[in-house]
Amino acid sequence: MHTDREIRGIRTAVAGWRGRGEYIGLVPTMGNLHDGHLRLVEAARRTADRVVVSLFVNPLQFAPGEDYERYPRSFEADAARLAEAGVDLLFAPDVATLYPDGGSRPPTRVEVPGLSDILCGAGRPGHFTGVATVVTKLFNIVAPDAAWFGEKDYQQLLVIRRLVADLCLPVEVFGVPTVRESDGLALSSRNGYLTPEQRAAAPALYQALTAARDAVLAGEEPGNADTAGWNRLQEAGFEPEYFTIRRAADLDEPGPEDRDLVALAAARLGEARLIDNVRFER
Amino acid sequence: MHTDREIRGIRTAVAGWRGRGEYIGLVPTMGNLHDGHLRLVEAARRTADRVVVSLFVNPLQFAPGEDYERYPRSFEADAARLAEAGVDLLFAPDVATLYPDGGSRPPTRVEVPGLSDILCGAGRPGHFTGVATVVTKLFNIVAPDAAWFGEKDYQQLLVIRRLVADLCLPVEVFGVPTVRESDGLALSSRNGYLTPEQRAAAPALYQALTAARDAVLAGEEPGNADTAGWNRLQEAGFEPEYFTIRRAADLDEPGPEDRDLVALAAARLGEARLIDNVRFER
Repeated sequence: MHTDREIRGIRTAVAGWRGRGEYIGLVPTMGNLHDGHLRLVEAARRTADRVVVSLFVNPLQFAPGEDYERYPRSFEADAARLAEAGVDLLFAPDVATLYPDGGSRPPTRVEVPGLSDILCGAGRPGHFTGVATVVTKLFNIVAPDAAWFGEKDYQQLLVIRRLVADLCLPVEVFGVPTVRESDGLALSSRNGYLTPEQRAAAPALYQALTAARDAVLAGEEPGNADTAGWNRLQEAGFEPEYFTIRRAADLDEPGPEDRDLVALAAARLGEARLIDNVRFER
Repeated sequence: MHTDREIRGIRTAVAGWRGRGEYIGLVPTMGNLHDGHLRLVEAARRTADRVVVSLFVNPLQFAPGEDYERYPRSFEADAARLAEAGVDLLFAPDVATLYPDGGSRPPTRVEVPGLSDILCGAGRPGHFTGVATVVTKLFNIVAPDAAWFGEKDYQQLLVIRRLVADLCLPVEVFGVPTVRESDGLALSSRNGYLTPEQRAAAPALYQALTAARDAVLAGEEPGNADTAGWNRLQEAGFEPEYFTIRRAADLDEPGPEDRDLVALAAARLGEARLIDNVRFER
């Protein structure tokens, strides 16, 4: 595996592969890799001839007061795991490479209206604009044929699908199912913020989502299932930010005729803000 | 010259050329072509192996109440001129091709903060976001190596240079000098809105800009030259929107040490909103 911090080196490597007709896959990450990320790499390797992983903790997607500074960084361990997983190229730019003007002027932004403003976007103003902007930049630098994202960040996946469609980016976007611990907790870098007691309570998030799914499948109104899920999280010691059942296609409120649904929640447990979701058809 | 209204056809044609190592040039236009556009095509032909022209009147860059509906359209004549000029491919999409969701939801936007909000951006809210968005889409569809824009739309040229830098778009951007009538009036589709009397008065715009340049070169303060230019436009029958001397690099207010300047103005003359600029070094 080759590692490069510069845009030029990435472009040269990818251009060489493309010149040989190879299909290029990209897995964007913020590092601190866990098995969920490795699942993305495996999925990419099954489809792509060459797999590029980007590792960049993107300041633009953290709101003021969020955990940008203390977000866990583990470059050496990450690079070793990616090399072992068969990644061809690791793009690990410095902040000044992707944002050369620093804070001296606001950078060009990619905004996905609507989808960016609800749920996690309501609780984290500017977050999805930061995501959409950096993903657009990564796509323009790497020029992949396809990119893989985790379904754990379901709203992010929809934002990226929409920006790709709207901006006519020539990239296929694939979602990869969430990887969970044996007790159901979705893998996340932010699980590392949990104390042992909080870690023991954390699976309640997934349990509340699957309970909401089961209630709706048994005929419950989504609105009632939302309330029950919110209460269940509070009882487990979470501070819920939202708990809601939405249409899977666009995260709008579901009507009686909508079949393809997703239960989503964000909740704080101690220092950690955890999110998870369960997709289902009724 | 081949004409295509579909994204797929454009991508197929360009991919074929790129596969042979050819250098692809793009000239984005809104049609109603005049000699200024043809100058862009000539510049592109001197550098690029293949020249693609896009012809699309972009609704997103017109504010409500502006001239989107009556903007002059002359597709057959335009296509004939482009074919004669040696253009390889004309991309003339329908509105529904670039904005498939119509007005049902707001599309993903590319925003260039700061530069988009001043001068023409102050008078035309949303205009440069519409420009930046459609240019990003055209770049993603055509995937040109380089694109050519007229210096008459100087602020637009800077917006595009900045979005290309900020979003890491792999496109070289070239500006082409303004083409003028023999009396100095810059060529523009909107000159067609002028009555014969207004047309006779219209060269005062360029004259006021060159007079401001000459005054600054003779030692006048830019602020005084701005006022003189504004008055001169009013005397000629214009309603000025702005008349200002700025730094050429970023359109900020010039300090005493700034050498590379541009005098810019926008003014209404009857039904036409005209813009022009003169770049100079002191």
